[in-house]
Amino acid sequence: MSTQSYKTQAAAFFREMQEKICSALETADGKVQRQADAWDRADARGGSGGGGLTFILKNGNVFEQGGVNFSEVHGSLPPDMTLKLLGSAAEAPFYATGISLVMHPHSPLVPSVHANFRYLEVGDKKWFGGGTDLTPHVLFEEDAAHFHLTLKAACDAHQADYYPRFKRWCDEYFFLPHRGETRGVGGIFFDYLGKEEPSLLPGIFAFVQQAAESFIPAYLPVVNKRKSSPWTEQQKEFQLLRRGRYVEFNLLYDRGTLFGLRTGGRIESIFMSLPPNVRWEYNQCIVPGSAEARLLDVLKAPREWV
Amino acid sequence: MSTQSYKTQAAAFFREMQEKICSALETADGKVQRQADAWDRADARGGSGGGGLTFILKNGNVFEQGGVNFSEVHGSLPPDMTLKLLGSAAEAPFYATGISLVMHPHSPLVPSVHANFRYLEVGDKKWFGGGTDLTPHVLFEEDAAHFHLTLKAACDAHQADYYPRFKRWCDEYFFLPHRGETRGVGGIFFDYLGKEEPSLLPGIFAFVQQAAESFIPAYLPVVNKRKSSPWTEQQKEFQLLRRGRYVEFNLLYDRGTLFGLRTGGRIESIFMSLPPNVRWEYNQCIVPGSAEARLLDVLKAPREWV
Repeated sequence: MSTQSYKTQAAAFFREMQEKICSALETADGKVQRQADAWDRADARGGSGGGGLTFILKNGNVFEQGGVNFSEVHGSLPPDMTLKLLGSAAEAPFYATGISLVMHPHSPLVPSVHANFRYLEVGDKKWFGGGTDLTPHVLFEEDAAHFHLTLKAACDAHQADYYPRFKRWCDEYFFLPHRGETRGVGGIFFDYLGKEEPSLLPGIFAFVQQAAESFIPAYLPVVNKRKSSPWTEQQKEFQLLRRGRYVEFNLLYDRGTLFGLRTGGRIESIFMSLPPNVRWEYNQCIVPGSAEARLLDVLKAPREWV
Repeated sequence: MSTQSYKTQAAAFFREMQEKICSALETADGKVQRQADAWDRADARGGSGGGGLTFILKNGNVFEQGGVNFSEVHGSLPPDMTLKLLGSAAEAPFYATGISLVMHPHSPLVPSVHANFRYLEVGDKKWFGGGTDLTPHVLFEEDAAHFHLTLKAACDAHQADYYPRFKRWCDEYFFLPHRGETRGVGGIFFDYLGKEEPSLLPGIFAFVQQAAESFIPAYLPVVNKRKSSPWTEQQKEFQLLRRGRYVEFNLLYDRGTLFGLRTGGRIESIFMSLPPNVRWEYNQCIVPGSAEARLLDVLKAPREWV
């Protein structure tokens, strides 16, 4: 496949995926309707840097706030960023297209979720990256197992080592060193696939498509199972505090956030991932043996779910 | 003054200041009482790395959450940090003592405030740094002017160029490039004072003491003037959204936060600065000509207040 067709086909696939996922989330919610926001990006020199389309979902029955974003942007990367990516410090052109979504439900029983699938070109390198991960505030082991099993099936259809590698990569990536905790129960994460072996890109693109398609069957059954259960004030309070960790991860460590800020990305789209209501409390107290403590045990020592 | 006496005297002064400021805040609040939390810090090798004393003030009449922290820590800085500070990339011992405080009032009419005064030694270099800055959510120009005038008087007693230099430094430091906004209406900020000219350290220490002493007369009259006024839901909502900017600054840019995280600082003390309740909203809408728009004008183009 020529470079042009990767760009075209990946962008078309991600845009179509955005539509599918957003519709499925609206259906599961039963009330929320997307607010669509098309935006353009100016490059550093004021010319066109591409753009995107953001669907915001807020004040639903299930979802308090979240969004499903599609973007297709291009421009020039500064030398310190090309040094890391290409091994030489010289400004280089880049192209990126992808879908990214984050959903923050009202109920602390319904996990937050994040997914991102993307295609990048920097200089003469091309690669795919992405993944999806689940952030429960009350741990239901069967939900974590269902999420992982669904993703494993998508991985296994392509390469036997994908799931174990990408599951571990996810645990390592979504990790807050200052807390010694993962962000949630993980999922899969991968990056730079095909970067050094362009001949593998067709198979990788097929895998990325299947992984993205598996998001709905991985997440929505969990939503539907939990969305009608009543929750307690204590669970809600704990959710708000855990959302603080989500913010800490996104602002301190997330590669996508920092890449977006460094390349003059659109602030509202980058920060779409931040939760609507959040708390921080000094010396938050976790009662040993409580549900909160059981969740923390898993965050401090990631488990195999399948 | 010998090195030992700087350490001893600076630490003693900061500890005394912590007591004074905390008492003054308690009095202004009328209800809140400090929760004291003494803590030890282990260095990277598991030995003693010093410690500190944190006073938490929460659920008061005026103050929703905040704290006044004293610390005296020591250990070893990694090479990439000494490279920036000393110009050579080799592990070096460091010592740091200081006071830092952040207060987040309930009322959106009472500004949040931050202050930090510190003495550092890294390798054979010694210096003072610090400052204090005001973050209103509803702009009262007379409050900003009072805060700045009080700090200017402390500066002017030492060097004519201190206030203009440190006022500008504060505007430049507490700046969110991705928003194109300062965090608040500023105050003063300075760093590395005396680092290259040890003979100036005695005068600088005297200045730092006067600047720290001026915190109470700079901030408390503003608190007392505004604390009993009723506020609207809309003002409260705006405060929660502005607190999001506070979090963004602290996690993305604040030197103290990043220094603390890099040197294995105590998480609860570092994140004591984060507000208790925070909101993020996609494409927050500011009505032209509104009070919110008037505040933003000042944050986008810092003003001279004296």
